[in-house]
Amino acid sequence: MTVSYTKKVSDCKGFGSYWRLLFRWRGSLYKLVWPDTIVYIVLYFICSMVYRFGLNELQRRIFEQLSLYCDYFRNLIPISFVLGFYVSVVVERWWEQYLSIPWPDDFALLCTTYIRGPGERAKSIRATLIRYVNLTCVLTFSAISPGVKKKFPSYKEMLEAGYLTPQEQRALEIQAGRTSVTLCCLPLMWCCKLLEGSRTLGDLRDDMGLRLLVEEVCKLRDKAGMLIRWTDISIPLVYTQVVTMACYSFFFFSVLGRQFLDPAQHYNNRTIDFFVPIFTLLQFFFYMGWLKVAESLVNPFGEDDDDFELETILERHMKMTYLLGDVTPNEDPLATCDDLA
Amino acid sequence: MTVSYTKKVSDCKGFGSYWRLLFRWRGSLYKLVWPDTIVYIVLYFICSMVYRFGLNELQRRIFEQLSLYCDYFRNLIPISFVLGFYVSVVVERWWEQYLSIPWPDDFALLCTTYIRGPGERAKSIRATLIRYVNLTCVLTFSAISPGVKKKFPSYKEMLEAGYLTPQEQRALEIQAGRTSVTLCCLPLMWCCKLLEGSRTLGDLRDDMGLRLLVEEVCKLRDKAGMLIRWTDISIPLVYTQVVTMACYSFFFFSVLGRQFLDPAQHYNNRTIDFFVPIFTLLQFFFYMGWLKVAESLVNPFGEDDDDFELETILERHMKMTYLLGDVTPNEDPLATCDDLA
Amino acid sequence: MTVSYTKKVSDCKGFGSYWRLLFRWRGSLYKLVWPDTIVYIVLYFICSMVYRFGLNELQRRIFEQLSLYCDYFRNLIPISFVLGFYVSVVVERWWEQYLSIPWPDDFALLCTTYIRGPGERAKSIRATLIRYVNLTCVLTFSAISPGVKKKFPSYKEMLEAGYLTPQEQRALEIQAGRTSVTLCCLPLMWCCKLLEGSRTLGDLRDDMGLRLLVEEVCKLRDKAGMLIRWTDISIPLVYTQVVTMACYSFFFFSVLGRQFLDPAQHYNNRTIDFFVPIFTLLQFFFYMGWLKVAESLVNPFGEDDDDFELETILERHMKMTYLLGDVTPNEDPLATCDDLA
Amino acid sequence: MTVSYTKKVSDCKGFGSYWRLLFRWRGSLYKLVWPDTIVYIVLYFICSMVYRFGLNELQRRIFEQLSLYCDYFRNLIPISFVLGFYVSVVVERWWEQYLSIPWPDDFALLCTTYIRGPGERAKSIRATLIRYVNLTCVLTFSAISPGVKKKFPSYKEMLEAGYLTPQEQRALEIQAGRTSVTLCCLPLMWCCKLLEGSRTLGDLRDDMGLRLLVEEVCKLRDKAGMLIRWTDISIPLVYTQVVTMACYSFFFFSVLGRQFLDPAQHYNNRTIDFFVPIFTLLQFFFYMGWLKVAESLVNPFGEDDDDFELETILERHMKMTYLLGDVTPNEDPLATCDDLA
Amino acid sequence: MTVSYTKKVSDCKGFGSYWRLLFRWRGSLYKLVWPDTIVYIVLYFICSMVYRFGLNELQRRIFEQLSLYCDYFRNLIPISFVLGFYVSVVVERWWEQYLSIPWPDDFALLCTTYIRGPGERAKSIRATLIRYVNLTCVLTFSAISPGVKKKFPSYKEMLEAGYLTPQEQRALEIQAGRTSVTLCCLPLMWCCKLLEGSRTLGDLRDDMGLRLLVEEVCKLRDKAGMLIRWTDISIPLVYTQVVTMACYSFFFFSVLGRQFLDPAQHYNNRTIDFFVPIFTLLQFFFYMGWLKVAESLVNPFGEDDDDFELETILERHMKMTYLLGDVTPNEDPLATCDDLA
Repeated sequence: MTVSYTKKVSDCKGFGSYWRLLFRWRGSLYKLVWPDTIVYIVLYFICSMVYRFGLNELQRRIFEQLSLYCDYFRNLIPISFVLGFYVSVVVERWWEQYLSIPWPDDFALLCTTYIRGPGERAKSIRATLIRYVNLTCVLTFSAISPGVKKKFPSYKEMLEAGYLTPQEQRALEIQAGRTSVTLCCLPLMWCCKLLEGSRTLGDLRDDMGLRLLVEEVCKLRDKAGMLIRWTDISIPLVYTQVVTMACYSFFFFSVLGRQFLDPAQHYNNRTIDFFVPIFTLLQFFFYMGWLKVAESLVNPFGEDDDDFELETILERHMKMTYLLGDVTPNEDPLATCDDLA
Repeated sequence: MTVSYTKKVSDCKGFGSYWRLLFRWRGSLYKLVWPDTIVYIVLYFICSMVYRFGLNELQRRIFEQLSLYCDYFRNLIPISFVLGFYVSVVVERWWEQYLSIPWPDDFALLCTTYIRGPGERAKSIRATLIRYVNLTCVLTFSAISPGVKKKFPSYKEMLEAGYLTPQEQRALEIQAGRTSVTLCCLPLMWCCKLLEGSRTLGDLRDDMGLRLLVEEVCKLRDKAGMLIRWTDISIPLVYTQVVTMACYSFFFFSVLGRQFLDPAQHYNNRTIDFFVPIFTLLQFFFYMGWLKVAESLVNPFGEDDDDFELETILERHMKMTYLLGDVTPNEDPLATCDDLA
Repeated sequence: MTVSYTKKVSDCKGFGSYWRLLFRWRGSLYKLVWPDTIVYIVLYFICSMVYRFGLNELQRRIFEQLSLYCDYFRNLIPISFVLGFYVSVVVERWWEQYLSIPWPDDFALLCTTYIRGPGERAKSIRATLIRYVNLTCVLTFSAISPGVKKKFPSYKEMLEAGYLTPQEQRALEIQAGRTSVTLCCLPLMWCCKLLEGSRTLGDLRDDMGLRLLVEEVCKLRDKAGMLIRWTDISIPLVYTQVVTMACYSFFFFSVLGRQFLDPAQHYNNRTIDFFVPIFTLLQFFFYMGWLKVAESLVNPFGEDDDDFELETILERHMKMTYLLGDVTPNEDPLATCDDLA
Repeated sequence: MTVSYTKKVSDCKGFGSYWRLLFRWRGSLYKLVWPDTIVYIVLYFICSMVYRFGLNELQRRIFEQLSLYCDYFRNLIPISFVLGFYVSVVVERWWEQYLSIPWPDDFALLCTTYIRGPGERAKSIRATLIRYVNLTCVLTFSAISPGVKKKFPSYKEMLEAGYLTPQEQRALEIQAGRTSVTLCCLPLMWCCKLLEGSRTLGDLRDDMGLRLLVEEVCKLRDKAGMLIRWTDISIPLVYTQVVTMACYSFFFFSVLGRQFLDPAQHYNNRTIDFFVPIFTLLQFFFYMGWLKVAESLVNPFGEDDDDFELETILERHMKMTYLLGDVTPNEDPLATCDDLA
Repeated sequence: MTVSYTKKVSDCKGFGSYWRLLFRWRGSLYKLVWPDTIVYIVLYFICSMVYRFGLNELQRRIFEQLSLYCDYFRNLIPISFVLGFYVSVVVERWWEQYLSIPWPDDFALLCTTYIRGPGERAKSIRATLIRYVNLTCVLTFSAISPGVKKKFPSYKEMLEAGYLTPQEQRALEIQAGRTSVTLCCLPLMWCCKLLEGSRTLGDLRDDMGLRLLVEEVCKLRDKAGMLIRWTDISIPLVYTQVVTMACYSFFFFSVLGRQFLDPAQHYNNRTIDFFVPIFTLLQFFFYMGWLKVAESLVNPFGEDDDDFELETILERHMKMTYLLGDVTPNEDPLATCDDLA
């Protein structure tokens, strides 16, 4: 579920509002980083214990040399730089993926405008068209999101939720046996046929309306297709590996390199022994947190705290399209234009 | 209220104009940073006093070691780097949010072009259409902006301001009881129905005009929907936390690390005791200011000095759409085309 | 006036062409930076004189400590980093502002295509439509640019330049008394009405043409509106202040910090006394120049050397739209299609 | 074949999922970097052996000086900086190239909507139109991708795969003799002619449909043309050379510069002799990996692990367009609109 | 001529392919940088000779101080940073300029679809329309590219190449005497008139077609206009000067600063005398190469190796539009739709 805090930070008065965000748990840095942190601390203290109690004088001198060496050289890899570039690619893709989610409200508005007429037929055509569009959304979302898949594991659940009729289910099942391509967009074809049919019968008021509706169907297909392709084409694995390897090896070597050494040896910047490596942990939090930003955004359709809630969006689409598509009951403030005269 | 200074810096003559911007208070760095600064200074001087007067010789040596240690290690976190990337994400989103504000001028122009005819009916249709569009703006803005919400806390105030008729208010209220989705876009559905009706009656001159107007309605809905979604989907909390934590911990440790130490000890770069840490304060101003840029832009619909003035925009929309929609009285320079012949 | 040098650097042969650009004055770094430089040099030498001749030995030692301190600490603020990010925001906005300038050529082409017919009426309709569009340009530009405002301080000058007729002037003046919103786009409403009228009379050949022309009018309004909004919404003041303060304080402290100290004291990297601080001046030029890039681009509608020449664009629009709109006399290579047969 | 791992990283629970990505071979860093690494290791150890066993005392001192010198100066070139900028240009182009791949699904949907009618003729027109579009895809892809070229080296294979009829093959071959330009888009011209013909015959239901279909053909041509142009216009060679040279020379000099020197000489940071240069290899992996990101993405139509699988896309296009274009058999849930009444 | 190497680097197997790019001359770093390099080397060695043979002991000590001073301080200007930002602005503009080149293929396809009919008239209308569009390309390109200007210095050469008829040449010449604006787009006005005429005569099949063709004409005009404006509005001169000055002064001072000093003086990092400054030259190559990337891309319509080949594009446009516009002879695989039945 997306963590929405924008309203909490609408003002920047007094001490501002960002510091308050530090005390949240859902979707937070702490929640993402704690398992790694614990492993890191355990490793660090094992190492520390060995150095302090397990080694003789000579071994300690060698350990110290090793530690200084690790500390010096792990800095040769500019992880802040590569993380900066990598995270901005990830954040950009994350947002573009959000924009790729199909939003059928306009389709519903166009149905309301163009498919009118006396009797119930126009209304049931509108309802069917809107259902087809929502069906495409369900099929697409369940192909990319484990959460939606869990809710709608098969056509049966969609039937129960009112996205499908039994005939449609049969049509989808038969087709699934015939072809290997995804059937997400098949309902949009039915949609197009129904539009053409209703134009022929005169329920769709003019050619312009047919065109607008068909274009809207194409836009929805583009978005649905794009959503699936986002999941197919990941950020090149090499890039992700380079960043991950840099980050993990940096901290792997810091277990040795950031040990507190005997102040009596007067190594540079090693004049105090705090026992608890506050700054190293801070650095760990910082860089690991930055990497976790990437990790939690790279697939925003999962079940992380910060992923898009496709289930909620599906429900909203259903309700909103029926509302704007003039299918559910609602009062009109004006019966006809003549009221205005 | 947005702070607009562009006209003041139109020329870059003499010493330029940027230095003059340093002497402004509204929306300024100083206004945003002063509370944090005072806390910081107080902490700093408490610490300074303790060091200077509260410790014995030995404790002072330890304090000095601690201070040097903090000073050295707080630099391990590249806050300028992460701030740079974070702030550019925030600034980009800030501007895109501005561009998402619906602007109904084109809708009014299209009404003027296509909905004409003798008598008053065409004019009152235009007025109603424009009112519906403005109503959507009010409903949307009050959902995202505390300022607009304060001005229009309920339908009553909108009714008084002329955005609603009593029938419409009733229709909205009944619908609010039926559905859980936002009703911001319901007036746009009424708009679509009215357009269709006026086309049927012949007030809307051709199918092309119906199409253009409906497309414009869809554009406005897209923008209104987008506005609400901007508020729902914040920049991932982890990212904000990483940046905030880095920045605050940097300065927390600088309280210790940037103390003036006894020059007599001849520590590196610690040869003068100024008492007032000018450079540290400058650095505080600089980094905190940079963070405040993010903080004040992350939700641009609040009541910061630099937030978009949605109330003013609403008023302007009302006046401008009535003007361009040919609803308010205005003189035409040409009565008919025949004047040109 | 924009400084156009692209044609001078079309080839990159021999020593390339960039070095030749260093010897230009108009719109140059030198022209922008010299007043600041002189102030800086004066301050620097006053300080230098005091150090060299005004202080006794002890005071000089203190001065030297102070100088070393300033030199070390002014580097704590990463001005190159923040300048880099800030300037890229400014450059991006500068170019988007350029792209927001309305360009009515397409409108003229559409008029030529669709508004034809025997007799003079079609031609005079075209002329009026084009005049309205140009009038909107004038009104918009004079609202944002001091240069255009100076040329067209009131309707009278526009009347003389042929953008207005007396009736139109009266219509604008009456309306100005009635409403507080800007009237920049009112001529576009007249334009729409005239288009509708000429379609009704049959001078505009088909509904498709009416639609294309109205859409083009909307595009022009969008751009005109956008231009005005660019000026309203500046880059947040905090950001500009952070950058400016960083840059000025950097150089303020360098007056002390970059003094040549007595080489006999053997301070680090202070072994030569050049008297003239070449490198410091170079650095001053570099960073101040970078800041001036931002300063001169932040409002590109002023009268800097590098600002867009809206006056010239206005004249060009007038001539080009009359040419492409088939209003000024011109020869057609083909009288009719039959010539081709 | 694209390496798709997004679904594997949908959640960021426990230790996250990125570390698991480190153990993949296909498309991995290791696979790309190992040949260079082996060469590097061999060079390194030859050099190391010479230093350790082949030189006398004096020569070793000289070698050490040389090594320190190389180590110091190779750091003067900011390869992380230039790699960061270069790789972000490459990644951006890589994604835009992906978006340029033509996707004919919308065309098929439009055919289904507009080309209907009793009898078989409408269906066979749809089939032919879709075949033409797919033919353009094949011709374009085989012009840019060695993999597709291998699968379809000549018209014969396309004929066998059902993209071409013998007449069409003949038409293409004759035209190839007449002109030197690429014939990729010729089938789209046939497509346009067929559309016009079917409109004249009445199979295409209205002018609006003809327009939509022709516009879709133009969009496909734009994308096909763009694909070919992406291959023509590479990132400027100078840029690539600068980056490559920087990276290779950095590691060339590190062979000398990163040798373990005799600890007995007490050079700075050279106090331990590990024999195996772990950190240098890590650095090599890191920078070379980053360069390989660029190298493997710069032409995404090749046969790297991470390149786009155009063969698979072609097959999918064929199946999907026949499905959505209502050419292959499929059940309709609704026979006519009347079912809804 | 553009240097196209993408196909050479389609695979990243073995040692990858980038190292092979280092051995190219056309459009290469070496070709661009060698003149500067030679001047640099000459200066360097003159200086070196003076130091080694021309100075007495005392003067050498002073020289050494000067050299160390220059070496230390030239690093104060972050040229890698400013080059990084500047080059990314240039590369972005370079690519957008490429995308602004008008591409008339779609126009030809639309002509083929909509302008049909028995007899030769439709064909000769198509030919004329396409010629007008190509004429606009020639006129635009010759205004921005010295290469095209050289090939078509006056209307005479265009007449010979078949872009113009004598009447059209006359019309252009008369108009050139009347107005001061560029006539690049005048042929597009003729195009619009001819389209309107052929619609009136019935050669253009429907209003929708007229609209599509006119819109395409507008798109071409936009691109042609944009091309010319790219050349008018350069990257602000200040920015270019800042970068150039930084880069040149950096190397100017390195002539002194990077001299090999007497190792016997034991200056820091100056312990070896190589005589040939390998690393300094590498750095020179690197930074100068990076600057030359900008220099050769800033005007991509010149005659650099990496500039766009507008002459070739013109020829291709001519052939391709005649092919797709169904003007040159070509076989149709289908005579009529009835063949499909």
